[in-house]
Amino acid sequence: MTTTLFPARTTTPEIEHGAVLQPKFGSDGLIPCITTEARTNEVLMFAFMNAESLAHTLRTKKATYWSRSRNKLWVKGEESGNVQIVKEVFTDCDQDVLLLKVEQTGAANAACHNGYRSCFYRRLADLADPSFRLEFVAQPLFDPATVYKKK
Amino acid sequence: MTTTLFPARTTTPEIEHGAVLQPKFGSDGLIPCITTEARTNEVLMFAFMNAESLAHTLRTKKATYWSRSRNKLWVKGEESGNVQIVKEVFTDCDQDVLLLKVEQTGAANAACHNGYRSCFYRRLADLADPSFRLEFVAQPLFDPATVYKKK
Repeated sequence: MTTTLFPARTTTPEIEHGAVLQPKFGSDGLIPCITTEARTNEVLMFAFMNAESLAHTLRTKKATYWSRSRNKLWVKGEESGNVQIVKEVFTDCDQDVLLLKVEQTGAANAACHNGYRSCFYRRLADLADPSFRLEFVAQPLFDPATVYKKK
Repeated sequence: MTTTLFPARTTTPEIEHGAVLQPKFGSDGLIPCITTEARTNEVLMFAFMNAESLAHTLRTKKATYWSRSRNKLWVKGEESGNVQIVKEVFTDCDQDVLLLKVEQTGAANAACHNGYRSCFYRRLADLADPSFRLEFVAQPLFDPATVYKKK
């Protein structure tokens, strides 16, 4: 997937060791994006961006993803108020993933639509347990029924 | 994609609020996986797993991915020695992403094949700069030419 919004992909040495962003958007036009809290490095969420959402993110400093379910630009927190102010944008060795470091804002400072700070609020209780039981490691910070009731 | 290795996907409430792992493997059989250093939360890398690699990870406690380029199971560090010992496995709200917290081991404690601790060794120097210049935020910890020369 090519885009005129960002530099074209060149050679492997340039992509892996160079000093110009050359993001790889997949055949669906999307690149995976990991978002962490800048202060603590806590992983808040994982989503996808297309070229337009990355450009919007850089221009506004508000993390903006591509919603695959709604098929539209998704300014994180535009409905809930839990906007993410982007502090730093990293890419990985082969530039096919992005990493945002953000300041999570909003009344509850929560990134997850279920009310938790992070979407990763459950972990396997015991890696060797064949029942694959999850345990909760966080408490919700807001009630989704209240925050999203306006729509 | 269904698999007999893990519980089948049930209902949205069970997936988002339940206490059983029900990982969503995509139509290609893969689920995205974020890997962080357990002590510091630093994001080390991003890769994919299929059901077999997740099962291998849980059984051996060594992070095991699916290499899309080599089309085979990829025990991280099997060649370089930079094995990742898995401490915790999280999933996100809709259980279509995994998050591993690992202890990065090996002579250099480096996750990236280019010799850096993390694959995310470059960031945009200035979000508003239309040249999209990347700056390096880390130094390589080993020389890939030495570590991988045996093959």
